[in-house]
Amino acid sequence: MGKPAPLSPLAPAAFPDLPEIGGVRFATAQAGVRYKGRTDVLLVSLAPGTAMAGVFTRSATRSAAVLECQARIGGDPAPGAAILVNSGNANAFTGRRGVASVLALTEAVAERLGIPAARVFTSSTGVIGEPLPHERITACLDDLAGRLDPGGIEAAARAIMTTDTFAKGAGETVIIGGQRVRIAGIAKGSGMIAPDMATMLVYIFTDAAVDQGVLQDMVSALNRTTFNCITVDSDTSTSDTLLVAATGASGVRVSADDGAFVEALHRVMRDLAHQVVRDGEGATKFVEVAVTGAASDADAHVHAKAIANSPLVKTAIAGEDPNWGRVVMAVGKSGARADRDRLSIRFGDLEVARDGEVSPAYSEAQAAAYMKGQEIVIRVDLGLGGGTARVWTCDLTHGYIEINADYRS
Amino acid sequence: MGKPAPLSPLAPAAFPDLPEIGGVRFATAQAGVRYKGRTDVLLVSLAPGTAMAGVFTRSATRSAAVLECQARIGGDPAPGAAILVNSGNANAFTGRRGVASVLALTEAVAERLGIPAARVFTSSTGVIGEPLPHERITACLDDLAGRLDPGGIEAAARAIMTTDTFAKGAGETVIIGGQRVRIAGIAKGSGMIAPDMATMLVYIFTDAAVDQGVLQDMVSALNRTTFNCITVDSDTSTSDTLLVAATGASGVRVSADDGAFVEALHRVMRDLAHQVVRDGEGATKFVEVAVTGAASDADAHVHAKAIANSPLVKTAIAGEDPNWGRVVMAVGKSGARADRDRLSIRFGDLEVARDGEVSPAYSEAQAAAYMKGQEIVIRVDLGLGGGTARVWTCDLTHGYIEINADYRS
Repeated sequence: MGKPAPLSPLAPAAFPDLPEIGGVRFATAQAGVRYKGRTDVLLVSLAPGTAMAGVFTRSATRSAAVLECQARIGGDPAPGAAILVNSGNANAFTGRRGVASVLALTEAVAERLGIPAARVFTSSTGVIGEPLPHERITACLDDLAGRLDPGGIEAAARAIMTTDTFAKGAGETVIIGGQRVRIAGIAKGSGMIAPDMATMLVYIFTDAAVDQGVLQDMVSALNRTTFNCITVDSDTSTSDTLLVAATGASGVRVSADDGAFVEALHRVMRDLAHQVVRDGEGATKFVEVAVTGAASDADAHVHAKAIANSPLVKTAIAGEDPNWGRVVMAVGKSGARADRDRLSIRFGDLEVARDGEVSPAYSEAQAAAYMKGQEIVIRVDLGLGGGTARVWTCDLTHGYIEINADYRS
Repeated sequence: MGKPAPLSPLAPAAFPDLPEIGGVRFATAQAGVRYKGRTDVLLVSLAPGTAMAGVFTRSATRSAAVLECQARIGGDPAPGAAILVNSGNANAFTGRRGVASVLALTEAVAERLGIPAARVFTSSTGVIGEPLPHERITACLDDLAGRLDPGGIEAAARAIMTTDTFAKGAGETVIIGGQRVRIAGIAKGSGMIAPDMATMLVYIFTDAAVDQGVLQDMVSALNRTTFNCITVDSDTSTSDTLLVAATGASGVRVSADDGAFVEALHRVMRDLAHQVVRDGEGATKFVEVAVTGAASDADAHVHAKAIANSPLVKTAIAGEDPNWGRVVMAVGKSGARADRDRLSIRFGDLEVARDGEVSPAYSEAQAAAYMKGQEIVIRVDLGLGGGTARVWTCDLTHGYIEINADYRS
């Protein structure tokens, strides 16, 4: 693992106080999958009736755990469910042995918790291509099952970390029909997403009662404007997983058009997504790219991603250089519709370019001062239509090279 | 400009001896467009009858010079032609003033050389968004026109450099029907392609007599397996330009199926393309990605580009880490067809993975030793069909961050 990276300068002051969620219990252990002396396994037990929704990597080389999760996600909530996560080994590109490991783990968890194996969801994050020593994990299961605790969410967030420099959590409590409904989530990931150790894993729990199909639609829709809108380095993991569990313990039934709940879930998802970016490998700046005036929302997203993924835009931000020409370049290469002479660009509230040339109001000194901030907003208006998108990223620094150029050695 | 970068470790030993091309004369000057004390303008005069072919950036924000070149490229070769190139200022995203600068330059060259303005092709490379002080260039034209010299190609290669660490040239002499035909080309670029100072510009000259349409088809086809197959950082310039001029001075007429000529032109184009990669910003390794067994050639190209553009693959190569899991990741995210369990990967001749898992023959020590070389070949076989592609790139190092994070400051 090399030396641990220093805490991200963009880290929040502390892990947040998260509400306990009825029907959800956590336990963590040191299984020694790859690391010694730190927790690397998380078991989550979910009460009978818990509906599960999920969104997964679209990688063509996705891991056995992801494939099994996808096959199981629509199942009957009646018997409850469980989530088992290990760090240190991704069990990806491990062939038939990899599938056998997933089946061994889900069978073992099912037996300990008295639920069907089809209701056990697993994730693995870590090195690709090495067989998972799953027996080290199954050896801990009796101990884990005996220590399940509703208050263990911060320890859970720590157990799934790999190259992360801080544990990531977010929560909300909303009042629906006069009753409290709680949401709490955890995430790991410090690249979008480095495949070795920086797979993005997100687990969100709520005591709302939500039908599985409704929950899935809600999560898929909200994912499009949260986790699908972050990028650290344009790379995509074989194992990215977002699971949302609704236990129903609050007794409050939530429908698809329950605005307060949907908005609260949206905030939790966006908060966790931003925390992943804030722990981006080597990040020193948090960057929002806001595109308006595109021919369509899809076009706006393509432009925003092209800007957010451009190594030249990201290195300029690292260098605190208001190099808006690189934003022009990224829009030009994105492949989505653009008209050079209608394009305008702002850094924060400073207009730097309009109508295809530098803005008459542009002041390099003001723009350079703006770039010294830790939070940078790049606004691009295409002047073509009503399409909009927002994407979040971080800068590209020496820290990224250091972490990735000698990670395994 | 900051301090000049040290010579690329991948640079050739010396600028090659290039054949003089009948009908082509060069002159360079210090116009002080942005830099002082170095040549920054190149004028090339091309004899009557010279056919011109070109390939240009597909950026939606392309520069005025590119748009004008595209409009002029198919014109009548009878009166001859000229090429005018400046470094230091890209005249891109400069609105109507940018177009006016191009027209002023082409009119001025046309007057000096006694050719129609429609036969003058210009390129500008340098900072984006600043008006081009074109009068500094026109002020040099009398002097340039008076010093045109068939032997000035190495000076020409130097005058168009920006962040390049070495001048790039390549040439061939082939015998066709018992007669000599010569090809000589120059290029600049040290990113594929950084927009500020690393736009790729390529000028190739031959004394073959080739019809304009035949030459254009030949150049477009060869471009697909040469300049379109290199990438340094996945960014694309607003100003990329490849111009090929056939003067006919050898008296040898070349047709579309003249294998010896097409192959020689291909070698010159590939050589120059490789030299651009070898001068990639911060590069310490030259990398070939060879994909076979894809469902189609197009799919193979998508996979090869995804591998060659992956920051994680490129940082692993910089770190001399045989991290083949990152190659799996890049194939998975590319969007082109892949079957995890049919995939095999080789580093050079070393098989590292096959049939969806690590190869039984894999030796980490051998692979690590291979990665210490300066020339790395990554071979991926998809096991799906007959599609192939080859792409060339370099590693991603601290040098890239240094060059791009404080380039303008």
